[in-house]
This record gives sequence, structure tokens and C-alpha cells, in this order.
Amino acid sequence: MNRITQLFNIQYPIIQAGMIWCSGWKLAAAVSQAGGLGIIGAGSMYPDVLEYHLQQYEKTTNRPFAVNLPLLYPSISEHIETIIRHRVPIVFTSAGNPKTWTKHLQDAGCKVVHVVSSAAFAQKAEAAGVDAVVAEGFEAGGHNGREETTTLCLIPIVRKAIQIPLIAAGGIATGRAMLATMVLGAEGVQIGTRFVVAAESSAHDDFKQKLLTAKEGDTMLAMKKLVAVRLLKNGFYEQVAAAESRGANAEELAQLLGRGRAKMGMFEGNLQDGELEIGQIAAILDRVQPAAEIISDILQEYRMAQQEIQQDAFRF
Amino acid sequence: MNRITQLFNIQYPIIQAGMIWCSGWKLAAAVSQAGGLGIIGAGSMYPDVLEYHLQQYEKTTNRPFAVNLPLLYPSISEHIETIIRHRVPIVFTSAGNPKTWTKHLQDAGCKVVHVVSSAAFAQKAEAAGVDAVVAEGFEAGGHNGREETTTLCLIPIVRKAIQIPLIAAGGIATGRAMLATMVLGAEGVQIGTRFVVAAESSAHDDFKQKLLTAKEGDTMLAMKKLVAVRLLKNGFYEQVAAAESRGANAEELAQLLGRGRAKMGMFEGNLQDGELEIGQIAAILDRVQPAAEIISDILQEYRMAQQEIQQDAFRF
Repeated sequence: MNRITQLFNIQYPIIQAGMIWCSGWKLAAAVSQAGGLGIIGAGSMYPDVLEYHLQQYEKTTNRPFAVNLPLLYPSISEHIETIIRHRVPIVFTSAGNPKTWTKHLQDAGCKVVHVVSSAAFAQKAEAAGVDAVVAEGFEAGGHNGREETTTLCLIPIVRKAIQIPLIAAGGIATGRAMLATMVLGAEGVQIGTRFVVAAESSAHDDFKQKLLTAKEGDTMLAMKKLVAVRLLKNGFYEQVAAAESRGANAEELAQLLGRGRAKMGMFEGNLQDGELEIGQIAAILDRVQPAAEIISDILQEYRMAQQEIQQDAFRF
Repeated sequence: MNRITQLFNIQYPIIQAGMIWCSGWKLAAAVSQAGGLGIIGAGSMYPDVLEYHLQQYEKTTNRPFAVNLPLLYPSISEHIETIIRHRVPIVFTSAGNPKTWTKHLQDAGCKVVHVVSSAAFAQKAEAAGVDAVVAEGFEAGGHNGREETTTLCLIPIVRKAIQIPLIAAGGIATGRAMLATMVLGAEGVQIGTRFVVAAESSAHDDFKQKLLTAKEGDTMLAMKKLVAVRLLKNGFYEQVAAAESRGANAEELAQLLGRGRAKMGMFEGNLQDGELEIGQIAAILDRVQPAAEIISDILQEYRMAQQEIQQDAFRF
């Protein structure tokens, strides 16, 4: 038990990241039923779709869970209203100013966690009164910070900068990485990439299968002049990389991106032309598993590594 | 004791990185006398300068040490000859094909370690017969891999790819980071950035002082079209960034870089126009210390963290 398991009232400090097109009620419920914290990713949902996912979740389990809400989402106030009406216990906010909604959500009984990519933003989130912070490193999939600070460097720096509970994200898919980031000062881990290939993830099967063959070096941070995003290399990525290499500006990149490309890739399975957001650690994925099995694998490896480092080979 | 301390015949698996303009005989001797492995960075030395540093080292201590040798160095065969004549016990090679010199050095009695930034190169190094591999992540200072894989992701992937001893590098400056990377599968750590500000480092004092004020986000990987290098942001970096943003090619970047710019920055202390190579973890540096004190700080924190994670707050 630590501050994160107490704050969320969960068994294990393993949080499944809220991921557009991948984490609906099925994945969130499976993770929460296994003792972690499941998150419904509202960033890709219209208000009626979020409503549906909350209803389905509530029918399935009464375990604690969260909704992930990018604060720049156009229908944000409708989402907030839905979240409060459904008494969602925890909200993870990202990509926006944590001052705007934190108190409103807390007054309605929500715990609020804000996702940051730098120590400066972690301090702003703490000052805004959030209950905990997720610090996400450069290796993470999807949208990403400008500073490019990796998880190994970010966690100790954020740990020194804030007092509130700290969750590590970016590059974590195994029990060893969980223990490593907790050694660095995190009190829990947020895991995205490995849960994309969970059986209950709503990612397209072809995307999941593609990820099982991904190798080291197969992702790259792209579109830094627009909104930095880590992508699996494919036809779309190559177009972006070529445009960036010749110095394309934000407008050109926005035009190249167009609309609906993430859905096309991750949800509809167009692996060539779609936008495939995923973390560097995709390189270690080797099978599709139920979420409960992912969690028990992680815990088993975590405990084994915890024992291992007490052995003589680790004493100096 | 583990495979790395046995291979090098040292007390602690803490290796001071061979760094151009920073790691001469004074720093290497101080690290080796404190029980780690000091490395003389030959990449910035003419043959007679390396000769001088070896002589000085030998006058100071008979503890094991290494020379770091970029395999693309123009006077490579003279350096190799000098290394063999001085019976240098260990050579760290980087930036080139490990097949070319490994056997020659080993036949002369040297242990050979090759520095890589990807699992594929780690396998090639193992196949070339090297005694150990350093796997260096994206957050590291100086020259850097194309794949941009972070230490947190790279170490587990390389661990699975090779059998020989593995040293982690990139983002490691503390005992917690040392333990974290060993949890991930490393058997030792190579530390650069923190030793740049060691009292015995030959970096210019103004560069050391500048590093003590560096904050998270103050370094960036630059010149990817030429040879990717992580730099502290300064006037020179801003010129490079502007050129890259408008799509400058390798030739333009080479012209902008010119010759002698790393020496100008790191050794001569021209903080505005020089090339200042340093890792992301510079953000945690807070003082200049003797190398022996750095090593004892790291070990103390390592042991404390090792104890800490046996406590209830880490049991799940």
C-alpha cells in the first residue's frame, strides 16, 4: 500500500493509460477488476459515446476507475457534466491548464490527476491543487512534451519539484520497468502501449498484430512544429518525416494530418495511411493477452526483480 | 561482485565515461582510485597527447583503467599502437565497426567493450567478440543513436538480445538511477555528465558552473542529418536549431559546425559559440565535487534505495 493505491482505493499502483481509440469501458473494466486502475479515454469520444461507455462500465463493475480528459477537447463542458453526473471517482486531465477545471471536479467529489511532461508543469499542476501528477517521458506513445525529457531523467527531477503523489509514464510495460521507475521516486505507473495489445483494447486487430512485430527504432517523435506525437513508422509517418526534413511548417503539417487519421489507423486498421500512436516499448510486445494476465505478469516480474536485487550480485 | 566488476577487476560497477575535452588522466585516476573504472577519452587527443596522459596515469596509480577510442578517429592505428605499448588493460570503442580492431586488441591482452545505441548493434558487437557492451540511451550527452531509444527502453531490449555483460549509459547520475538500470538488466553503469563537473575533470570551469544552473529541457538532440549530438542550448545550438527548422542539409550543418567547436566550448569555456555536449541529467547537477565523493554519494544512495524498496510501501 502506498499513497497511490490509497488515493485511488485500488490494490496495485498500475494504471492503464487513457488512450484514444483503444481504451473504452471493456479495457478499463478488465484492468480495474484485476486490481489496477482502468481509464476510459474520452479524447476520442463524442459526449453520447462517453455516456454509453460510462453506462457499460457501471453495468460491469463497481471498482474505482477514471476518465481521461484532454482539456483542449472541444466539448469539454459536456464531458465534465457527464463525468460529474455519473460520479466518476477519478479524472485524469492532460493537454491544457489544470487550473480551469480541477476545483470544479473536486467540489463534485472527483479526484483529479494531471499529466505533465516537465517539472515546471508538474509544479503548476500541484499549485492548481490536483491530487496527483503523471510525469510522462519522451519514449511514451501519442502526444508528447517539447522538452523531450526521458522517463529516467524526468521522474527524479519531478520528484524533487513536487510533494504530491507521482505516477511515472513512458517506456513502462513490465514489472522490471515498474520497479525501476519506483526506485526513481514514482509511486505508481501508467502503462499505455502494453494495454493497446490487451485482448479488451478496442484497437483494430491488425494494429495489434502489427505491434507484435515492431522492433526497436520503429517509432519516432514527429510533428514537433504542430503537436509532437510518437508514431509507429508507416506510410503516413514517412510522408511527415519527408515534409519535416525539408522544413515544413505547422500549417503544412496540419494539412498533411487532415482529420480522422488516428481513427483510420488505430481503430479502422489502415496501417499504411493511418496515424499509429504508440510508445518505444512496443518493441518488447510479443502477444495479445487479457488485461488481467498483463497485470499478473507485471506483478510477478516486479516481485522477482525486488528479490533479485537483494542478492550478492547487487551488493557493492 | 558481478560480471562487470570481475571483468574489469574493480570494486564498484561504476564507469566514468570517456568524454572528449573532459576526461584526461586526472579524472580517470581519481575514479579508478575510488574503486570505479576511469576512462581516458582519446577522441580529442593527438597521439602524443594520449601518450602523455598514459604516462601521467601510470605515475599516479596502477589501478585498472580504460581508454575510449572512437573507431572513426583519423590516427586510429597510432592510438592502437600506443594503447598496446602501454598495456592499457581495457579499451572502450565506439562509433565504428567493432570487427576491425577487437581481435587485434584482445590478442595484445586488452579487454574490449563496444558502445552501442541499439539492440542490432549490440548483437553485431557480440558477434565481433567484444567482452562487454555499453548500451547508451537517447538522453545521453554527446554523440547519439539514430533510433532515439531511451535508456529505460534500450536496456531491457539489449539484455534480451545479447548474452555478454551489459553496461547502461544515458541519464544515469545517481545511485537511484544506477539501481533502476540494474533492475532493468544492466550489470554496471557508465556515467558521463556527472563526472564532467568532477573537480578533476578538464572541462573549463565556466562550463562546469554553467552546468550547475542547467534546468530540465536545457539540452536537445541536434544535427541529426550530420551526426546526432546532444547539446546544451546556447548561441551555437540556436543557430543549428534555426538551420534545421528551415530544412538545412548535412553539408550546411557541417559548415555551421566548422572545426574545433567542441574544444572552444567545453575546454576553452566559450559558452556562447562553443559546442557544449552534455546529457539531459545535467538538470540535477548542483555542485562540483571530487570524483571520489561522487562515487561514494552514488553508492550510498544505491544502498539506501535497495533497502527502501523492501519496505511495505513497495510490496504489492
